[in-house]
Formats: sequence, structure tokens, C-alpha cells
Amino acid sequence: MANSEEHNFQVRKLELSDKGKGFIELLQQLTVCDSVSDKDFEDRFKELSARAEDHQVFVIEDHRSGKIVATGSVFIERKFIRNCGKVGHIEDVVVDANARGMQLGKKMIDSLTDYARSLGCYKVILDCSVENKAFYEKCGYVQKEIQMVKYFI
Amino acid sequence: MANSEEHNFQVRKLELSDKGKGFIELLQQLTVCDSVSDKDFEDRFKELSARAEDHQVFVIEDHRSGKIVATGSVFIERKFIRNCGKVGHIEDVVVDANARGMQLGKKMIDSLTDYARSLGCYKVILDCSVENKAFYEKCGYVQKEIQMVKYFI
Repeated sequence: MANSEEHNFQVRKLELSDKGKGFIELLQQLTVCDSVSDKDFEDRFKELSARAEDHQVFVIEDHRSGKIVATGSVFIERKFIRNCGKVGHIEDVVVDANARGMQLGKKMIDSLTDYARSLGCYKVILDCSVENKAFYEKCGYVQKEIQMVKYFI
Repeated sequence: MANSEEHNFQVRKLELSDKGKGFIELLQQLTVCDSVSDKDFEDRFKELSARAEDHQVFVIEDHRSGKIVATGSVFIERKFIRNCGKVGHIEDVVVDANARGMQLGKKMIDSLTDYARSLGCYKVILDCSVENKAFYEKCGYVQKEIQMVKYFI
């Protein structure tokens, strides 16, 4: 990536104004995500801001287009095991389909991982599809367990 | 389970005094968990109490022995996807090796799952070993993804 492009794609924390920069539309590329009202977005944003010590949402904005092109979140779990250790959980990682091939996904994962490490986590975990395993291996992750789920709706 | 036994094994929230009832020793059956000082335990207990809306640790005490024989925790993640939905994450589930065969594990998982549902989560997820998959299927869970991990220590 050229220096100018490197400068264009910095990882930063989610801001309230990012809703107007395609943040929700980006999440819709990941999974079920209906349009969110400004009020609901602001309420959730404030809830997460009040928990900023434990939960961060990162984004990458393409400053040329003014659009959010990548996002990911990490929250910090406080345990009793591992000497009252902390674990980072990475969730909801997505890169805009039109911004692939610039390693923005790896940049996002590296940032989320480094953030968890800086807070003293002894490990970071995430769940992914088998198809995405190779990508996370490039980010230094290894497969360990299996994910089980129970849906209510 | 006889009614008297049913009454003996109620799920309740972790209390500060549970450290003296073998709570840490129980966790040591699960994974690496060095002995925790009273001060460290109290500090972590208070941190979690301050986050009680998002994180609960449940235990089952055997009232005959006065020992904690099962535990599990659940924390609530607030997302933007799924209409600003919430997801429950179950962690650190263990039943005392001497208290197996009484379905305390299922009782614990059911309680953690119901708790997450009562808070409006649209799903609950957890990671487990392949060996424990059948147990979680009995609790109504199905396998979905794979877990990736990066350790720092």
C-alpha cells in the first residue's frame, strides 16, 4: 500500500456521525441488520460509550469517499480464572466489498487485537466460519474450540 | 432428582462469601486458575458488581456441605446489528467432579440461557471442546462456527 493510501485508511473509534457515513449499510454486508433509526443508533452509541472501558467499536473511513469501509468491535471480559484475567472478544468484523484487497481486514483485526492486549488481556478470541479460518490464521490466530449457539428468534 | 435434592441445588448469583466456599478451587477444575488473594477476589467481585447489568456469575451451592459445586457466567454484548440487538456469551462453566450425574451442568446452562433471554438477547453463544458438544446439544444448542484464539502469554 502506498503511503498516501496508508494515510487514507486509519483505524479510529466509532463516532456518532458515522451513521451518516454508511456504517449501518456496511454492517448489512455482514448479516441481518435492518435500517436503524437515528434515535436507536444514538441510544446504542451512548450505551457503548458509557461502557467504553469494556467495549470499543473501531472503523476505517475512506477519506476520499467519506464512507466507512471497515469495522470491528472488541469487548473485554473480566474473569476469575487466570489470576483474575481479562479476555478480549472480537465481534462483527466486516470490510466493504468494494474495498477488499487492501488488507483492511488484517489492519482492523491487528488493531482490535493490539487494543485488547494493551488492556492486559491474556488472550483474544473470536468465532468465524470455516471459510474465514485462513484469514484469521494470517492474523496470528489458531483454531481451538467450536462455537455453539441457541437462537431465540 | 428428589424434591429435597432439588431444593438443595438452587442456582443463585455469586456472593462475596463464596470464595470461602470453594469457588476458586472449583474453577481450578476448569483451567489454569492460581489461588486468588482475598483482595484480588474482592476487587474483581466489585468490578463485576458494577457491571451487573452486563455480566452475571451464577453458582450452585450444596447446602449440606456448604461448598460451591457448579458455576457459570454470562455477559451481554450490545450490538448494532439485528436492530441494535443483544447477545449473551456464556463462559467458565464447570461442575465439581464429585457432583456429576445430577444434571447440575444442564441446570446451570438453562439458568444462564434463560437469564440472557430475559434481558432481550436474540441468541446465546458459547465455545466448547468437541468432547462437550453432545452436552450442549442436550441444552438446546447447535454447532455453528469455529473458535479462533490468539494467546499473549
